[in-house]
Amino acid sequence: MTKEAKKLDALFHDTLKDIYYAEKKILGALPKMAKAAQSEELRAAFEKHETQTQGHVARLEDVFAMIEAKPLGKKCAAIEGIIEEGQEIMKEYKGSPALDAGLLAAAQAVEHYEISRYGTLRTWAEELGLEDAAGLLQETLDEEKETDESLTGLAETLVNQEAQEKAAA
Amino acid sequence: MTKEAKKLDALFHDTLKDIYYAEKKILGALPKMAKAAQSEELRAAFEKHETQTQGHVARLEDVFAMIEAKPLGKKCAAIEGIIEEGQEIMKEYKGSPALDAGLLAAAQAVEHYEISRYGTLRTWAEELGLEDAAGLLQETLDEEKETDESLTGLAETLVNQEAQEKAAA
Repeated sequence: MTKEAKKLDALFHDTLKDIYYAEKKILGALPKMAKAAQSEELRAAFEKHETQTQGHVARLEDVFAMIEAKPLGKKCAAIEGIIEEGQEIMKEYKGSPALDAGLLAAAQAVEHYEISRYGTLRTWAEELGLEDAAGLLQETLDEEKETDESLTGLAETLVNQEAQEKAAA
Repeated sequence: MTKEAKKLDALFHDTLKDIYYAEKKILGALPKMAKAAQSEELRAAFEKHETQTQGHVARLEDVFAMIEAKPLGKKCAAIEGIIEEGQEIMKEYKGSPALDAGLLAAAQAVEHYEISRYGTLRTWAEELGLEDAAGLLQETLDEEKETDESLTGLAETLVNQEAQEKAAA
């Protein structure tokens, strides 16, 4: 193995540990977000996301196995910060009609972090000749993008509902 | 103004302060990333991004003026975490051929955070009837997406260059 490949190997492995830690943090945060959500649609979206996230964790464990590494997390300051902001929203906007909008925004920040990480890992897996890993990472990337789009749709629906209620008031 | 509109107003204002703080942090980080970059293309991309970010800060100041608020930042834990991870990469991969790949990954995490925040703010501005603000936020959102795409292109170019160098070796 050349020096170059070894370094990208290490970066791939480090970033895999970063997103593994992040996915587990997200798994812990989602039930709280679902519980806080005011609209049934948003609660259902968070519950669906939780199930999906369990699948993403399992895929990451498969990728760890492919590089013959133990599935271990590495503290990820980015996801800690993103989730902390979501918790602030839940606290500051508790009981507010804007709470769901804030929860949606927090969830989309999480999605975008994941989209950037999975895109990066997929590209590196290809470079490292890890085609099976690249395939699994692409599957999760596609799901994260779909989730982000459905959250955008939900944000617009909530906004339209509010506008209609105002017009009718 | 209804209670509902006031609450979304507050959330819009809070999130505007969050991204204003984030953009200023990014302005501070970009010259360090440009200095650390090994390839000329990546350095140029970071320098271009810095100029663009100055424009985004100015647009945010226009949006603050539109809601008759002072342009103030609010500590954003998410961007702090994202930038902290980028700094770790610069430290841990200094002198490594994988450094540029790591810098690109850090920059794309920053872009995706911004994409999620500007998308959210644009939607809320529309809901609040702030059409001019929505227009400005959309302009920045479009630029952030373009930057992310060009970084993806650069990541793939770097990977292909490495692959060609290996094949030739």
